[in-house]
Amino acid sequence: MTHVNPYYVNLKDSFLFYETKARAEAFEAAHPERRVLRLGIGDVTLPLAPVVIEALHKAVEEQARKETFQGYMPELGKDFMKRAAAANYARRGVQLEPEEIFVCYGIGDDLGAIGGLFARENRVAVVEPAYPAYVDTNLMAGREIIPIPGTEENGFLPLPFPGLEAELVYLCSPNNPTGAAYSKAQLQQWVDWANAHEAVLIFDAAYEGFITDPEVPHSIYELPGAKECAIELFSLSKSAGFTGTRLGYTVVPKALIREGKSLQAMWVRNRSTCTNGVSYILQRAGEAALTDEGLRQSRASLGVYRKNADLLTAALERCGIRYFGGQNAPYIWLRCPGGMDSWSFFDWLMEQAGVVGSPGVGFGACGEGWFRFSCFSTPEVTAEAAARLEAILPRLQGQTDP
Amino acid sequence: MTHVNPYYVNLKDSFLFYETKARAEAFEAAHPERRVLRLGIGDVTLPLAPVVIEALHKAVEEQARKETFQGYMPELGKDFMKRAAAANYARRGVQLEPEEIFVCYGIGDDLGAIGGLFARENRVAVVEPAYPAYVDTNLMAGREIIPIPGTEENGFLPLPFPGLEAELVYLCSPNNPTGAAYSKAQLQQWVDWANAHEAVLIFDAAYEGFITDPEVPHSIYELPGAKECAIELFSLSKSAGFTGTRLGYTVVPKALIREGKSLQAMWVRNRSTCTNGVSYILQRAGEAALTDEGLRQSRASLGVYRKNADLLTAALERCGIRYFGGQNAPYIWLRCPGGMDSWSFFDWLMEQAGVVGSPGVGFGACGEGWFRFSCFSTPEVTAEAAARLEAILPRLQGQTDP
Repeated sequence: MTHVNPYYVNLKDSFLFYETKARAEAFEAAHPERRVLRLGIGDVTLPLAPVVIEALHKAVEEQARKETFQGYMPELGKDFMKRAAAANYARRGVQLEPEEIFVCYGIGDDLGAIGGLFARENRVAVVEPAYPAYVDTNLMAGREIIPIPGTEENGFLPLPFPGLEAELVYLCSPNNPTGAAYSKAQLQQWVDWANAHEAVLIFDAAYEGFITDPEVPHSIYELPGAKECAIELFSLSKSAGFTGTRLGYTVVPKALIREGKSLQAMWVRNRSTCTNGVSYILQRAGEAALTDEGLRQSRASLGVYRKNADLLTAALERCGIRYFGGQNAPYIWLRCPGGMDSWSFFDWLMEQAGVVGSPGVGFGACGEGWFRFSCFSTPEVTAEAAARLEAILPRLQGQTDP
Repeated sequence: MTHVNPYYVNLKDSFLFYETKARAEAFEAAHPERRVLRLGIGDVTLPLAPVVIEALHKAVEEQARKETFQGYMPELGKDFMKRAAAANYARRGVQLEPEEIFVCYGIGDDLGAIGGLFARENRVAVVEPAYPAYVDTNLMAGREIIPIPGTEENGFLPLPFPGLEAELVYLCSPNNPTGAAYSKAQLQQWVDWANAHEAVLIFDAAYEGFITDPEVPHSIYELPGAKECAIELFSLSKSAGFTGTRLGYTVVPKALIREGKSLQAMWVRNRSTCTNGVSYILQRAGEAALTDEGLRQSRASLGVYRKNADLLTAALERCGIRYFGGQNAPYIWLRCPGGMDSWSFFDWLMEQAGVVGSPGVGFGACGEGWFRFSCFSTPEVTAEAAARLEAILPRLQGQTDP
């Protein structure tokens, strides 16, 4: 009898975004007359930049002709795409070798695979609230999870503390879901802790494109010592609208050695065994997105999402609701008013205002009583949602808010 | 100290195609005057079909406009692509539900992930010679490998035998590298064995498009009982020229239950946790490739590759070299002449004829003394290679051929 993976029993039945989508769809089916506004899942709505579209068409045309046809890609990425990624780091003063950059389809995909580098026995600290895949991919591998709670008191930016024992640490800054972002000085504490403990940091830089504060690092490698302890995951999903197009990269520096093994060499072996390379067409799109012109064009979209954030935060402020984020990040993290728990507020808000968000508890136990709005919807939907919030939230205020 | 995956030490240092490429490149650098003909890696050379190109351009254009823009894909695939896959099975009389089809980037990628469904303790039987990733992905997971040797005597189509103890079995038919293909009656023996032993078959259908013999099944699900024991991996890489474009799917039937768990439900959980869906643009390409017109257009390319196979097998026959394959498959598997081992023949053939193939031993110990030619090169290169073989192979004949 084949033995199935025994660790799936440790997983909750459904994934957060499945559940919220299912509840929203059930609500819509029951109330066809209501217009439901979705500020839940963090999915972009603006089209790809013109230079990216142009690069995609050109690459498609190359696949149409024998003379320019591209077969198997190198499993670790085409040189042109690695150079584009390296140039993006060079803009921040970070020097990486092409062999340290691994082209992939995005962070979600490499998060699912990166655990293959590590033994089951490692303890995994997750700075929470967090994207659920950090926890779930490690539960599937049978690893022990140590949640490191973000709280209102630590500004949802917990730092290493005496007695913390873990071999892997997942960090996301600017953070999904709280929007909080570590300063260089704060993130340096994690780097120094990891080097002192010979731990490995898995750093999710998905929201790098939203940073405006000069004190917030765009890459963990801006900090001394990070190449000796950190793997960084980057994606064009949010910064260039690639959620449905897919492209990203993972950085495993050559200086990252554990138990005498080069994790970079192990990741070369892993990717060249477990993948067949990333679509040529998509790599050309990624290259275009990371040119100066590509970044310039994408910034226009990011500006639209920032204005969405301003609309929502202004409404929350007028209602006296406590929140984090909305700056350096496309998420707003708010205290559920009236002392409600996350799922109660999800249901209440959907039923009363027709607005769908994400329950904070879905990102970890410390998210209970909190709620996430995404700023990626259209300006029109966001403005309407802000107006509905402002009309309805005062009803709950002062009821039993702790 | 972070513990690295302890099982990587069980892997050989380099992956077969890395080593052959490195040797070929070193030879070319040392002999810039020689024209090296590559019949090694199984990579297509003909462009994508016109309907696929049209679908790609159209999808790119959709990503350029707000009204048609596509964000996150469902992690298990878009309905249109699942329907196209289901329709492809229906052509063979196989009925699958959309939830049993999981869209992916190709077989290489899902082979790297599918092991996550299973416990480490399973014993993995691999019908060899075989694509090296079957073994390497399982070595990385710490599993015991049981090679099931193909030999000249069993026609490189080994069947289950009394005393075979394994919980997972990897099969590829038509086979890479031997080109041998199981008949329905033969493959039924594997299905019956797996059901009797409650084992799981991982069936690689990458070369389905090359089948001409009506006795050879295109899908393992053509056989009674297969939905109760088999996972099938399919790719457009070889049948529609997608090696550099990427699209495939994996079938996990709902009837496949082990230890009381639905592997289909587990794979839903795995994919929705470990991936973020397959690029919209590529799914539209896959849909187009699987239309009647798409398949018709691809068949023209397959005809070119078949003629390449005919050129090579004719040359081998005139030289009196024993071989398998070249029918139902784009590979020719030949006995190294003169009693040479695989790598000696690789070096000899490269040096003497400037022809690069793949050493059979790279596909498993039972491949020692055998060699693979791919039929995916251009007709011009293939014809030149056939002429060189015919000129040079007789030198070795009769020397010490066993």
